[in-house]
Amino acid sequence: MQFASDNQAGAAQEIIDAIAREASRFGVSYGESALDKAVRQRFSEIFEREVAVFFVATGSAANGLAMAAVNRPGGIAFCHRDSHMIEDECGGVEYLTGGARLHGLEGRQGKINPERLDQVIGAFDPTSVHGGQPMAVSITQQNEAGEIYEPREISTISSIAHKPRLPLHMDGARFANALVHLGVSPAEMTWKAGVDILSFGGTKNGCIGAEALVFFDLELARDAPFIRKRAGQLFSKSRFIAAQFDAYFNDGLWLRLARHANAMADRLREGIAGSSRIRQAWPTKGNEIFVVLSSSDAERLRKAGAMFHEWKPPAEGNALNMMDSDLLVRLVTAFSTQPKEIDSLLDALRG
Amino acid sequence: MQFASDNQAGAAQEIIDAIAREASRFGVSYGESALDKAVRQRFSEIFEREVAVFFVATGSAANGLAMAAVNRPGGIAFCHRDSHMIEDECGGVEYLTGGARLHGLEGRQGKINPERLDQVIGAFDPTSVHGGQPMAVSITQQNEAGEIYEPREISTISSIAHKPRLPLHMDGARFANALVHLGVSPAEMTWKAGVDILSFGGTKNGCIGAEALVFFDLELARDAPFIRKRAGQLFSKSRFIAAQFDAYFNDGLWLRLARHANAMADRLREGIAGSSRIRQAWPTKGNEIFVVLSSSDAERLRKAGAMFHEWKPPAEGNALNMMDSDLLVRLVTAFSTQPKEIDSLLDALRG
Amino acid sequence: MQFASDNQAGAAQEIIDAIAREASRFGVSYGESALDKAVRQRFSEIFEREVAVFFVATGSAANGLAMAAVNRPGGIAFCHRDSHMIEDECGGVEYLTGGARLHGLEGRQGKINPERLDQVIGAFDPTSVHGGQPMAVSITQQNEAGEIYEPREISTISSIAHKPRLPLHMDGARFANALVHLGVSPAEMTWKAGVDILSFGGTKNGCIGAEALVFFDLELARDAPFIRKRAGQLFSKSRFIAAQFDAYFNDGLWLRLARHANAMADRLREGIAGSSRIRQAWPTKGNEIFVVLSSSDAERLRKAGAMFHEWKPPAEGNALNMMDSDLLVRLVTAFSTQPKEIDSLLDALRG
Amino acid sequence: MQFASDNQAGAAQEIIDAIAREASRFGVSYGESALDKAVRQRFSEIFEREVAVFFVATGSAANGLAMAAVNRPGGIAFCHRDSHMIEDECGGVEYLTGGARLHGLEGRQGKINPERLDQVIGAFDPTSVHGGQPMAVSITQQNEAGEIYEPREISTISSIAHKPRLPLHMDGARFANALVHLGVSPAEMTWKAGVDILSFGGTKNGCIGAEALVFFDLELARDAPFIRKRAGQLFSKSRFIAAQFDAYFNDGLWLRLARHANAMADRLREGIAGSSRIRQAWPTKGNEIFVVLSSSDAERLRKAGAMFHEWKPPAEGNALNMMDSDLLVRLVTAFSTQPKEIDSLLDALRG
Repeated sequence: MQFASDNQAGAAQEIIDAIAREASRFGVSYGESALDKAVRQRFSEIFEREVAVFFVATGSAANGLAMAAVNRPGGIAFCHRDSHMIEDECGGVEYLTGGARLHGLEGRQGKINPERLDQVIGAFDPTSVHGGQPMAVSITQQNEAGEIYEPREISTISSIAHKPRLPLHMDGARFANALVHLGVSPAEMTWKAGVDILSFGGTKNGCIGAEALVFFDLELARDAPFIRKRAGQLFSKSRFIAAQFDAYFNDGLWLRLARHANAMADRLREGIAGSSRIRQAWPTKGNEIFVVLSSSDAERLRKAGAMFHEWKPPAEGNALNMMDSDLLVRLVTAFSTQPKEIDSLLDALRG
Repeated sequence: MQFASDNQAGAAQEIIDAIAREASRFGVSYGESALDKAVRQRFSEIFEREVAVFFVATGSAANGLAMAAVNRPGGIAFCHRDSHMIEDECGGVEYLTGGARLHGLEGRQGKINPERLDQVIGAFDPTSVHGGQPMAVSITQQNEAGEIYEPREISTISSIAHKPRLPLHMDGARFANALVHLGVSPAEMTWKAGVDILSFGGTKNGCIGAEALVFFDLELARDAPFIRKRAGQLFSKSRFIAAQFDAYFNDGLWLRLARHANAMADRLREGIAGSSRIRQAWPTKGNEIFVVLSSSDAERLRKAGAMFHEWKPPAEGNALNMMDSDLLVRLVTAFSTQPKEIDSLLDALRG
Repeated sequence: MQFASDNQAGAAQEIIDAIAREASRFGVSYGESALDKAVRQRFSEIFEREVAVFFVATGSAANGLAMAAVNRPGGIAFCHRDSHMIEDECGGVEYLTGGARLHGLEGRQGKINPERLDQVIGAFDPTSVHGGQPMAVSITQQNEAGEIYEPREISTISSIAHKPRLPLHMDGARFANALVHLGVSPAEMTWKAGVDILSFGGTKNGCIGAEALVFFDLELARDAPFIRKRAGQLFSKSRFIAAQFDAYFNDGLWLRLARHANAMADRLREGIAGSSRIRQAWPTKGNEIFVVLSSSDAERLRKAGAMFHEWKPPAEGNALNMMDSDLLVRLVTAFSTQPKEIDSLLDALRG
Repeated sequence: MQFASDNQAGAAQEIIDAIAREASRFGVSYGESALDKAVRQRFSEIFEREVAVFFVATGSAANGLAMAAVNRPGGIAFCHRDSHMIEDECGGVEYLTGGARLHGLEGRQGKINPERLDQVIGAFDPTSVHGGQPMAVSITQQNEAGEIYEPREISTISSIAHKPRLPLHMDGARFANALVHLGVSPAEMTWKAGVDILSFGGTKNGCIGAEALVFFDLELARDAPFIRKRAGQLFSKSRFIAAQFDAYFNDGLWLRLARHANAMADRLREGIAGSSRIRQAWPTKGNEIFVVLSSSDAERLRKAGAMFHEWKPPAEGNALNMMDSDLLVRLVTAFSTQPKEIDSLLDALRG
């Protein structure tokens, strides 16, 4: 009963097979192998336009280097205040940019409030040096609260960002989960909605470690090869990342894996709906579910072998109607979650 | 006939098997799995003392974060002027430290000259702010010229570094190749000779990507968890790095792989010694050989399918007695090099 | 009628005389002149303990270098969300520290709320790398809302900061104004209340440019000479800063100048109290007054020659009871403000 | 007998008078006063084209921020290996750029050797990320060896720099001394010879502290207001810097002061030429003289009250023919040097 995080899952067999195949041969290093090139080209096909792709070690690296690519002196990026970049990367963006600031914005269920974004950006006077310079907007898709932006919501935010020419970055650590939920194309969920840079994550969805920084605006990628290299993020045996992405995209593996994870979450949502001992803290759509339950029930689940993380109630969470003895808990399904794990969890809950 | 670099080789079967095993199960993320902990403990056993170990994505990251861990305001690290940190990391050390300087020192065959090191460090006046502050010395083992420091040479350098309390860092991208050549213990080649921090590389010796930052001085490692994390170098699925190191150390795999690569280099050295068309530019000891040959012979080898890199003659290389039509070429053997590749190369050379 | 800022005032005659005297002679550069040394010693006398003093160019530099001196990887400093470091320094702290984060805290009238501070710091888990590391607390005295912390309030905050060993920094751009208002000693307002580092400003109180970074904890100052120098903040003709501070302290000039500015503010407060057209937005104590008046009255004052800045209502300012046609305005008196300027302003207001 | 450095001199009376005048009035802060604007305009007149001017605290700040304005990821700036940026700024360029590297080039008498520069820059492959990116060339005028580049020499260097579009920076800490020696216009010594950015120093030539960063290529200055501000280098009472420059330029004061310093150096050179106890180490042209004398003579001069610094023989200095008992000494004249100081020095030498 593994519900702690999709990054605790293993890896899909197809991914391992691809690594094993690559292990038996030589290949040019530092991203210049034929496989590296082919996979980068594959990204362009998947996104239906020419993109610039840079494999990196972690999603945090992708986020930080994305910000480094667009930073300006006194630069400020706007993101949700519960975003991974603010809460979970140990100041990585600030460090990798040499001192950019993340301005955390409120907004329900992990989504930036567009009016607030517009107001906050508008308050900066580009002729004044004192307050610094806005330099980017960043959203997370599927976001930290398990919510998913509709393409039109992304378009609304990109319009606000683009007015003063700020690029829009998407942290796509759970890109596939959001994509299959929405049933749109990768293009529709990104550049067609105004996204300029994407942190594209494969690790949480069945890879052992495959993350990419994707630029839709090629001009912004001009210095990215150097930005990645100087950060110690250019793998010598880059083709083992390429091999993972190759298998990931082959025959729609990535979509299948994400659909499975989401379906497992749906099965869990159904079970929760039928239980009086547990309730969703707010509705979510992909492979993450946030539930409120009593601490004694949580304890019981743990004793039964369930793994999950307690969660900090969001600042906007005062409407959660939690009692003192209640806990907020996050349950995440993965590409490898088994239906019987869901059933066991629900059984354990019934006691 | 792959002699371009050991980072173009694939990976050992044992490494792949370990990854595959790990892929089929869940495990705690961010380096806190049982396997991660066991492998870190394994490092302590191998080095015969308690060490602090941090897996990172690349050797450049290990080097840069090592320097970040010991940097001081106006900090200057001393290394050979042909070192990887200076020549091949796109300013990674400077960037990851927020502005340290690498002071390149001359020295024959990629080794720092101890007298020169002593003189240069001694020229800094600790009471003067103008020239900056010495903060570390770094050597490469096996070094960029294919040479290997004897433990007593390392001791000489560490004594010089330690006088003004500078830590000694070793870039061990080819640690195993040096180790098996010397026939000493990991402890003897490092902390017993005064090394304080080690970039321990497994990637070039049969892993798909396994690098570790190892601190012998635990005090220096105090902030390293944060230093790694903020650089986007903490893998969520860290246990896939741990799995590689686990297999790497099991039954002495790492030593076997390195011995094989070195033996292949020895076979090649022998062949070269018997040829009038090619000669070693200088003697080397591990799995790298630097040769002088005519450009027409180099062309012939390439046509026969040999892969290798031309090399920039070192600043001290004016004694190479190269003719205008000669090239300096580096030949590197790997864990997977086949004897027949050596023989084919030598055959091709004979024409 | 100059009420825009005390940094728009000129300089006291004593300050100019000291500069002129120094101009006629030679002196050792880079802070090593006899005068530099004597003035640094003078700081120790004024603060009644040995302090380490570093002259810098601006208050922003003092703040940024203070933070650089105590920063840690993933470091986070806590300050009021309206603080100068956040609002007015173009990301200087983030830049000069190489990526520290400023965590802005709410709190009435520019003062950090101690309970909130305790809660926010307490939420960081020192064993988790994800959220970063608390590294300092910073308060402003006289603060951005014109308020002044009582020594016991400072003690309360320092106790909270010191629990997890965070140093307490004071941004003292208007140190003297606060000091003479409180009628306490420099020691009582700083280290005796737990302040570890001070940005000591003379510029706003009659110097042409004299700012100093003062360490009460000498251990924290160990690298400060290098931190200042590498930031381009060590003046070659440092003795012209020393000369200003020398005159500043002689015969209590600094206290006289500050008392005058505060007295002028008091005179203005009295006048405002007697007017029905203008009211204090909130009570203040030093040389800054925040008033609410109609935009037509503001316009009238401007036409009469009054200089002042509009001010952004604080986030906590919803209790200001401003009407749509009202403005919030800041009025600052200086060492050189003339009583007749106050009277003219009040006359102009009466129309 | 003050010959230690021109930064130990006081300040010209005209400079002090200008400061005193400004002290008696209010003025807008942060560089927006009428005087600030007028003086910036004055720079454009002096340089015969529109320039962008930014006052900063020190020459090191001007140098570091110039490099920050043009830096690129993995950026490398080329300068003489004895340059102030390398030897005397505590890693300020590296720090203020967030990790640029200074590549020190040899060259006789402090001048970059153009052939060597061309060769070194040409060795960088713009398609390879490993070695980093060239980003600027910097020369010092009057340089660290007391030498002065002829405009045609500057043109030669700028042509080399501009081939791969690298901007040419000039560190003009002793700009005026070089200018009056050459007898050319400020335009001829800078942008007409291909200089793109200038650190313009007034401090060593009679100001108390007046340094400016001057951009001839306005495009490069686009972010400079933010670059300066975030570094804590924007003075609130900026008009006191402006006032100094105003007086500096009025009636050619700056040229008069520099001519005087140079004339004093000439008088000293003449005296030295007539002495058998002291000789110039190499010919110089502005206000710095490097001499070889016996240590006992140096001691005698010191006892007689002469102030000067010993100097480290340059790497190319093996032709200095110094005996073991000889010292290399730097003698610097200033705007305020008196003829009788020269004569006393020469008298003391004669014993």
